Amino acid sequence: MPNEYPQALEDLIERLGHLPGIGRRSAERMALALLEWDAATLQQLGQSLAGLRQAIRPCVECGNLADRDRCRICSAHQRDRHTLCVVEQARQIPVIEKSGSYHGLYHVLGGRLSPLDGIELEQLNVERLFGRITELSAQEVILSTSADVEGEATANCLADLLRERCPGVRISRIAQGLPYGSDFTYADNRTITVAFESRREVPGK
Amino acid sequence: MPNEYPQALEDLIERLGHLPGIGRRSAERMALALLEWDAATLQQLGQSLAGLRQAIRPCVECGNLADRDRCRICSAHQRDRHTLCVVEQARQIPVIEKSGSYHGLYHVLGGRLSPLDGIELEQLNVERLFGRITELSAQEVILSTSADVEGEATANCLADLLRERCPGVRISRIAQGLPYGSDFTYADNRTITVAFESRREVPGK
Repeated sequence: MPNEYPQALEDLIERLGHLPGIGRRSAERMALALLEWDAATLQQLGQSLAGLRQAIRPCVECGNLADRDRCRICSAHQRDRHTLCVVEQARQIPVIEKSGSYHGLYHVLGGRLSPLDGIELEQLNVERLFGRITELSAQEVILSTSADVEGEATANCLADLLRERCPGVRISRIAQGLPYGSDFTYADNRTITVAFESRREVPGK
Repeated sequence: MPNEYPQALEDLIERLGHLPGIGRRSAERMALALLEWDAATLQQLGQSLAGLRQAIRPCVECGNLADRDRCRICSAHQRDRHTLCVVEQARQIPVIEKSGSYHGLYHVLGGRLSPLDGIELEQLNVERLFGRITELSAQEVILSTSADVEGEATANCLADLLRERCPGVRISRIAQGLPYGSDFTYADNRTITVAFESRREVPGK
């Protein structure tokens, strides 16, 4: 079947179809909607996409997404500068920020241990972590890597290295267990096992 | 709450959120995915958006979306050039094309009667339609405006005018196989096919 749309529109549809969760129909719908936008708005969107990689770069301190040298968290004076939360990717930081439950600084590893892909701890952003712990006189490092095999391995290796390189710093791991509001019936075995293993004593009144 | 993302990323998320069916969460997800695209691909997408309104223009014959003077349907030699299918918007043509049930030419009105918005038949692309009917010695005009009040009104007014201006041309109306009040653009192939097969001739008064 020949293309139903002019080539320029086909190209746009094809490119939009590479976005997560966007199939052919959604991409068509988006492209047709974009055709109705005025030229100036399309120009702005086009420029903001074309310049995205120049506009957004990693914060020189923590590796968070930033449009200046330092991200807005590293630049904020009211944050607790003695606590570092280690995450795998910068995109995980807004998730923690939205929860409002953490007020320290972050450190982005830029990945995690993955023997199959040949990714070891040395290839992640760990040397800078040790440097920052010293500079900031950090008192606690919270390892917030993912709750899966590779995330666990990364946290364990990093904890070993931290104990060796930064003695005296408290090392903690974000808790695992049942997600809030979830129905116990549908939890998977691994979640149940971890939730049991890391059960806490209910203090007496 | 302050922005969780750098301003350039916030701007992109805000703009993507104007696309149909894209809420804040989807826009965030798309923006973060775009950040992982390589710079060259982002450039291409940006340019194809910025230049979209220049690249895509109406076909001088029928008003379909085109990247040349004449759209690919008007340029195709194997189409039945004695039948014209009148639609409201160019974006409805691919929907009919995909159904494979129609092999004639099209004519885009560029809208429909809308007394509330002050849109009358004279403001639509109708003069060119009469001209084309003569030039092509068209034998049938299929009125494929939407199956709702305004679409019906447009078809009826246009039928009256056609009988007056182009006597001898068969005038038909796409059948009411379409779910009433639905947007024609998103109809499925089968519905389109049935609607084409059971089109009715508009009787003279």
